[in-house]
Amino acid sequence: MPIEIPRPSDLPAILDVTRSTGVFSQEEVETVQELFEGFLDGPEVSGYNFLSYRDGEAIGGFACWGPTALSKGAVDLYWIATSAKAQGKGVGAALFRAVVEAARAAGRWLIVIWTSSRPEYQAARSFYQRMGCQLTVRLPDFYDYGEDLCVFTLRIDQLQA
Amino acid sequence: MPIEIPRPSDLPAILDVTRSTGVFSQEEVETVQELFEGFLDGPEVSGYNFLSYRDGEAIGGFACWGPTALSKGAVDLYWIATSAKAQGKGVGAALFRAVVEAARAAGRWLIVIWTSSRPEYQAARSFYQRMGCQLTVRLPDFYDYGEDLCVFTLRIDQLQA
Repeated sequence: MPIEIPRPSDLPAILDVTRSTGVFSQEEVETVQELFEGFLDGPEVSGYNFLSYRDGEAIGGFACWGPTALSKGAVDLYWIATSAKAQGKGVGAALFRAVVEAARAAGRWLIVIWTSSRPEYQAARSFYQRMGCQLTVRLPDFYDYGEDLCVFTLRIDQLQA
Repeated sequence: MPIEIPRPSDLPAILDVTRSTGVFSQEEVETVQELFEGFLDGPEVSGYNFLSYRDGEAIGGFACWGPTALSKGAVDLYWIATSAKAQGKGVGAALFRAVVEAARAAGRWLIVIWTSSRPEYQAARSFYQRMGCQLTVRLPDFYDYGEDLCVFTLRIDQLQA
């Protein structure tokens, strides 16, 4: 499954993928745009890296990750999204593996994912667990009353390459 | 113990306090300066709020805190520092209580402190535990091999006011 670094012209397609999931708010779509613009300015400055799955002419999914501030070993996995059309084909897993490889190539050893306990993220939480991540902490009422912080982590220096 | 919002002219004194602790690197002193400049630009924009303890003409300690991104309930307590001269007088505890009250006044219910397992922060970790904070997560090798992330939290909506 071909995972590559997206081109500047892929921004509209990446926003379309984000919208097509049906999970993200307009504010979150705008956040993806800001992260992509940071990526275009240079990942070494912004800290935002993108990977995408190209399905013919379309973008079927993308991931955004970057080194964690103040840490020598951690990377934050900010987003993984697969378009409605491309779901169920293992695109998310291929993107996840590509992030792990990119983090490893950057000399990092820990993947960290901050997410929410909201019901619409249940599929995402299950996905991270299938990818081998552990729910390291669940902090009640962190985002709002009834909406907990869930932090998943994966040690990639203890995996077989 | 008088805790107040510092004045713009207090920047050099706040940097002196930071240096006098002997715990922080030059890079960390520069970070305090950036946070203070963000505070002067406006806490509602930068998210950085300062409180200080004034000891006559001198600044004996300060705290920096702000609302946690994407959260309705949490605040990050970024720094508490007491000058070498003012240590052992309860300045840190007074600053901590003032941060709790400011967070409560802002409608927030959770104090979150990210810190490191480095030996020179042992006094800080003990301090947070004396203040009632719990070590919610310890994530091995987060900052570097052998340097763990320690996250302390305190629910302030479950305390007596």
